Amino acid sequence: MKRTLSSQVPKSIGKEVLVEGWIHKIRKLGGINFLVIRDRSGLVQAIVGGEEAIEKLKDLTTETVVKIIGNVVKEDRAPGGAEIHVTTVEVLSPVKEDLPVEINKKDLNVNLDTLFDWRPITLRAPKQRAIFKVQAEILSAWRDFFKENDFTEINTPKIVEAGAETGGAEMFEIKYFKKKAFLAQSPQLYKEIMAGVFERVFETAYAYRAEPHSTSRHINEYLSLDMEMGFIDSWMDLINIHQELIKFILESLKKNAKAEFELLGATLPEYVKIPVIKLREAQEILEKEYGEKCVGEPDLEPRHEKQICEYSNKKWGTEFIFITHYPSKKRPFYTMDDPESPEETLSFDLLFRGLEVTTGSQRIHRYEDHLEKMRKRGMSTKGFEDYLNVFKYGMPPHGGFCQGLERLTARFLELDNVKEASLFPRDMNRLRP
Amino acid sequence: MKRTLSSQVPKSIGKEVLVEGWIHKIRKLGGINFLVIRDRSGLVQAIVGGEEAIEKLKDLTTETVVKIIGNVVKEDRAPGGAEIHVTTVEVLSPVKEDLPVEINKKDLNVNLDTLFDWRPITLRAPKQRAIFKVQAEILSAWRDFFKENDFTEINTPKIVEAGAETGGAEMFEIKYFKKKAFLAQSPQLYKEIMAGVFERVFETAYAYRAEPHSTSRHINEYLSLDMEMGFIDSWMDLINIHQELIKFILESLKKNAKAEFELLGATLPEYVKIPVIKLREAQEILEKEYGEKCVGEPDLEPRHEKQICEYSNKKWGTEFIFITHYPSKKRPFYTMDDPESPEETLSFDLLFRGLEVTTGSQRIHRYEDHLEKMRKRGMSTKGFEDYLNVFKYGMPPHGGFCQGLERLTARFLELDNVKEASLFPRDMNRLRP
Repeated sequence: MKRTLSSQVPKSIGKEVLVEGWIHKIRKLGGINFLVIRDRSGLVQAIVGGEEAIEKLKDLTTETVVKIIGNVVKEDRAPGGAEIHVTTVEVLSPVKEDLPVEINKKDLNVNLDTLFDWRPITLRAPKQRAIFKVQAEILSAWRDFFKENDFTEINTPKIVEAGAETGGAEMFEIKYFKKKAFLAQSPQLYKEIMAGVFERVFETAYAYRAEPHSTSRHINEYLSLDMEMGFIDSWMDLINIHQELIKFILESLKKNAKAEFELLGATLPEYVKIPVIKLREAQEILEKEYGEKCVGEPDLEPRHEKQICEYSNKKWGTEFIFITHYPSKKRPFYTMDDPESPEETLSFDLLFRGLEVTTGSQRIHRYEDHLEKMRKRGMSTKGFEDYLNVFKYGMPPHGGFCQGLERLTARFLELDNVKEASLFPRDMNRLRP
Repeated sequence: MKRTLSSQVPKSIGKEVLVEGWIHKIRKLGGINFLVIRDRSGLVQAIVGGEEAIEKLKDLTTETVVKIIGNVVKEDRAPGGAEIHVTTVEVLSPVKEDLPVEINKKDLNVNLDTLFDWRPITLRAPKQRAIFKVQAEILSAWRDFFKENDFTEINTPKIVEAGAETGGAEMFEIKYFKKKAFLAQSPQLYKEIMAGVFERVFETAYAYRAEPHSTSRHINEYLSLDMEMGFIDSWMDLINIHQELIKFILESLKKNAKAEFELLGATLPEYVKIPVIKLREAQEILEKEYGEKCVGEPDLEPRHEKQICEYSNKKWGTEFIFITHYPSKKRPFYTMDDPESPEETLSFDLLFRGLEVTTGSQRIHRYEDHLEKMRKRGMSTKGFEDYLNVFKYGMPPHGGFCQGLERLTARFLELDNVKEASLFPRDMNRLRP
């Protein structure tokens, strides 16, 4: 007999089905046992009445893996409008110890440490599963969008000799045979090299930051969604394709993750063209509207990011906002300065619901321009030879951006802590499970 | 004026176009310059005749990035049947040093060290690009197949406290703040945990092996394609879905990568149902057909893998073959032994064109069965607590397999060395670029 998924049971009224899954709930009432069985597709109610079957269930607890056979009966009070009247029960896999966390309540109501310490169990709770269903959907949509736009997927090394950004600072050190190596903090150098090969490339892979602090906005191992695009006419090409990307992701989520957003009580935004304003303009708004004396500061504070998103929502009807033209001294050396205002760069962040979810820019593409900028910054080229080398051999005008998948997921689902959007988060104090 | 891709130029005969790309070839003949321009879509021929334009080209070398404008003219002798008569040339990015490798010949004709030392340049050669176009297609098809089969994509940590397979041996060590950690050699533990959450999961991410040898079959950082599937009836469910996967990948390559296979002179196999034989049977064939005295050995030697694939091709018309039932002592402890023959396991490898490209098995899913097997092997449970823990809380019968993307690509394209299928390979002696 072939397995029927729980979501398909209501389509089999009057028929016998075989269902496999976990006992999500069990309730004994008189001589009858009410079970709720959970499988990958959802939940289904099952009624066990026979003596033999009840005997088998006697000592079983939730999370026991069972195979049941029974007849599907219309029952308006059951989820999906049907339930199974069980004839046989078989235990596929028992539970050996008391569950550390009850996962069949509406909410888990545990603190973050418990949530992560018992990840193999807490992830089975419907709301936790929903978070990672949405995450898988965002990731899939992200890749599909770039494939449809003629980008080539690349896989670049995470074991590197030095960092493109900082040359070793805030990077995890590895013993690589007899040498010292580091975990890549970004695929920056490699995606630029590959823009010289395929013009348009993307990569979805882990990046590592050895930042020794534990905040609700950071994790030390995160999935970096990276794109790089050659032959741009200006940095606005990057903003434009990013607008299209957000639209595409929103449409995919609407189509494929509506149930998860509902379960989690999160609002899926409608696409509205995202406003693009300079950092300076944002600061003027913050001063005028919120009394924040921040004009001329090199970056926005976390509370400013919240305020400007709130403002964007009020004024333009979207919780997204592009902030552009960050000062040159606050952006990595490879960022192109604005020829019309050399203290500023052709760079941008995308903020969403109060948090930066994207960083991007046009890059310098001529070798001499790199040397000149490094000279002006008083930077040595030492340690950056590999990075600089490729610019000797014809690199097109290019730029790109990156997003953190966990941050993006957390903002879409309005989670308090970015770690909640990581299956097995890594931070200063957490290395397992 | 909007950019036209080189592949679209033949559709614009009689019109003016703007093309951007690299000078792939340049040849001066009398007062005329013949250029071949390369962009992401291919190559196009361009003729420069005007004095001013020729002056601009005077000192230019191949790989210079240019923007040209000109009229498209029918020309049967040009690739695509059209060429551009250039009116203006603009240099977007010059070449500053002599190219270390000529990349515009049919073949590169360089040794592997040169190939990898100059990766930013050698990857631009059409045949090198084709390898990674095929690789991107395999990766995309691999994910699409599992998504269509109701698998959920997961992202599991690569920074781990201990190894699921060996508990630390042959793993790269990381300084993780004040602790010692390792780079994951496989997502084994995590994908099993996640089969307990979503039943069907897949992951495409790097895995790391600190094997201190340099062969044509190994790299130390490789992209591991992992799947795990709950509620299997038997290990044959895994073989069956793997058959479908291979069929799906072959169809995708036929549809989307035909040109690349042709350019590389590689044969794309037709799908034929892949034979499934036990190791013991394979050894008997090797003895009978090739005079190899190997019956009873715990594994196949590299030359045996070549011979058995050759045999499969002759006998069954496919260069793929599943070898099953490897001896228990040669497989990891979590592999399920065959209840009918406990010295053997419910495990399999897929061989393709002489090389193992997949390893898989049904896993043990009951806690006591794990303890019993570890006891029988004389293994301590120390270091495996996290792995074992999840089996206390109801794990379904499950199994899975993994493939190395680079190996798979190398066998499809009949490359001599698996490193040729890695953009920036890492081995004992190579940590850059």
